[in-house]
Amino acid sequence: MTPKLEDVAKLAAVSKTTVSRVLNNRGYLSQKTIDKVHAAMAQLDYHPNVVARQLYKNQTNLIGILLPSVANPFFGELTDTLERLLYQAGYKVLIGNSMNDPQKEAAYLNQLLSRQVDGLIVGTHNQHIQAYQNPGLPVVAIDRVMNEDIPVIASDNYQGGQLATTHLIDRGAKKIIHTNGPEDLKTPAQRRRSAYETTMVAHGLTPITYTVDFNIAPSAKKAVFRQIFQEHPDVEAVFAANDVDAALIQQVAGEFGRQVPQDLMIVGYDGTNLMREVLPNLTTIVQPIEAMSKMALQVLTQRINKEPTEKEYILPVKLWPGQTG
Amino acid sequence: MTPKLEDVAKLAAVSKTTVSRVLNNRGYLSQKTIDKVHAAMAQLDYHPNVVARQLYKNQTNLIGILLPSVANPFFGELTDTLERLLYQAGYKVLIGNSMNDPQKEAAYLNQLLSRQVDGLIVGTHNQHIQAYQNPGLPVVAIDRVMNEDIPVIASDNYQGGQLATTHLIDRGAKKIIHTNGPEDLKTPAQRRRSAYETTMVAHGLTPITYTVDFNIAPSAKKAVFRQIFQEHPDVEAVFAANDVDAALIQQVAGEFGRQVPQDLMIVGYDGTNLMREVLPNLTTIVQPIEAMSKMALQVLTQRINKEPTEKEYILPVKLWPGQTG
Repeated sequence: MTPKLEDVAKLAAVSKTTVSRVLNNRGYLSQKTIDKVHAAMAQLDYHPNVVARQLYKNQTNLIGILLPSVANPFFGELTDTLERLLYQAGYKVLIGNSMNDPQKEAAYLNQLLSRQVDGLIVGTHNQHIQAYQNPGLPVVAIDRVMNEDIPVIASDNYQGGQLATTHLIDRGAKKIIHTNGPEDLKTPAQRRRSAYETTMVAHGLTPITYTVDFNIAPSAKKAVFRQIFQEHPDVEAVFAANDVDAALIQQVAGEFGRQVPQDLMIVGYDGTNLMREVLPNLTTIVQPIEAMSKMALQVLTQRINKEPTEKEYILPVKLWPGQTG
Repeated sequence: MTPKLEDVAKLAAVSKTTVSRVLNNRGYLSQKTIDKVHAAMAQLDYHPNVVARQLYKNQTNLIGILLPSVANPFFGELTDTLERLLYQAGYKVLIGNSMNDPQKEAAYLNQLLSRQVDGLIVGTHNQHIQAYQNPGLPVVAIDRVMNEDIPVIASDNYQGGQLATTHLIDRGAKKIIHTNGPEDLKTPAQRRRSAYETTMVAHGLTPITYTVDFNIAPSAKKAVFRQIFQEHPDVEAVFAANDVDAALIQQVAGEFGRQVPQDLMIVGYDGTNLMREVLPNLTTIVQPIEAMSKMALQVLTQRINKEPTEKEYILPVKLWPGQTG
């Protein structure tokens, strides 16, 4: 005979309400009570019909997070923060690391369309996935422009570009080179380039931007950074696309006999807790990961509830003064 | 009238088999076909009854990964690798970052017991969660001893402790201090301590281990590391619990006027791609994350299929020679 919820309550010597609260993870419960209920469930081989309940309610309480890779410090900290906030809001988190794999991203989107997740938070770098064109999808983008319909949460990349460039100019640098992603990739990060170029020109300086694909291997990135020193031996400062690249640039500078900051100033980007821990000397622009995550959750909730949203939510950044620039 | 699969096929001008393959993400499909089917699904507001199908098959194709935090480089790379392998094997990945939160971990375990996930991969640091005592659960542990029943995948921590200690002794250090997690936390990492102590004694040296809780803030860790230099000003080398701690120890050494490696040698642990990228000079023990992840998937599959498994799977580590020790 299939065991019932009341059998579990009886064996665990608690009320049916308590069993239900354990199953739904709701209200205050002592660890002892949770353990008693779990033990009774196991002893009776009781399995609450959660999947059937999801079917009835037409919601899964699952949110998918699609990012290039959690092994990257920025996306790792972003995922960590989003997971914590989503869990507090009653959601569990599915992750998809879709670096270089548009087919994988399409599969996750398919999962959304087939109602296996309630919403998606997307910050991938893949292009041309048509299904995002369906209007009104419960999707928000982080630091990535998907299309006209999907709201974007981003930090103020223009302000970040201005802060970094002005900081380097104030410290005496004239020949400042910037690294950024491919221009055809529509990310708000392109506004850093625009801010850098505008600020340089406003100071009578010549902007030079090197394109570095985020997705390539460190050895390939280093090859591009060596080009900077070969083609511009008089470079005085680099404003890097992210902190990991900044670390690689510092290593390449060493190969060319350049000391940082005496012979070369470097400003990074992202300012995650991890990178500020392991490279505390790196001057960088700090993205507000906590605030961006909170905003993503809020806007996604509005989309799920079919409430109107803005096209874009821009949050302020700040400069972390280190010793590299 | 509710749209049917054949309506989607008709509108997309493809066969029903093709629609089914798009829905199940199976076989070769061109991006164009996938997009056509998605567009037809959206236009008709068709929703395949995936949740109902899961209910029928009694499987969800979801695997939960419970780790302290993906913001940590080791757990970030481990999650990234596991997600890639699990996705290839037809699974999607739910993550729970349960650092310092046994109630959250219990909630995920509850999810397993209520059949919302097919299996769990656990590497958390929480103790005393009773539900793991249920025999035969489709659970594997990574680098963590849960109980007698749950198989453990770990790198060879004893070998790692021996390699690091012998390396420092070979390079002339006599006063070598080791940092490790609390002894009451049952992790295979405790075997590093044992290897360190045995190796030190075998060379007529005195082992000294400082306990540093993995979960505390960097500032609190630094306070412990300062104690090392205050209580043992003659310390010649530190064998650190992980690479992030190694970076913090190097910073603290700087505060005490110690240059690395001249005045202090340091060996780290974990050797993730990220840390070897940003701190290429750090000598460290490299855990085989790819091999551990493959083994975890294999053993978890055996558990799901109710096949017998070993208690422990130990994979070899290697030393990455840097310039810090």
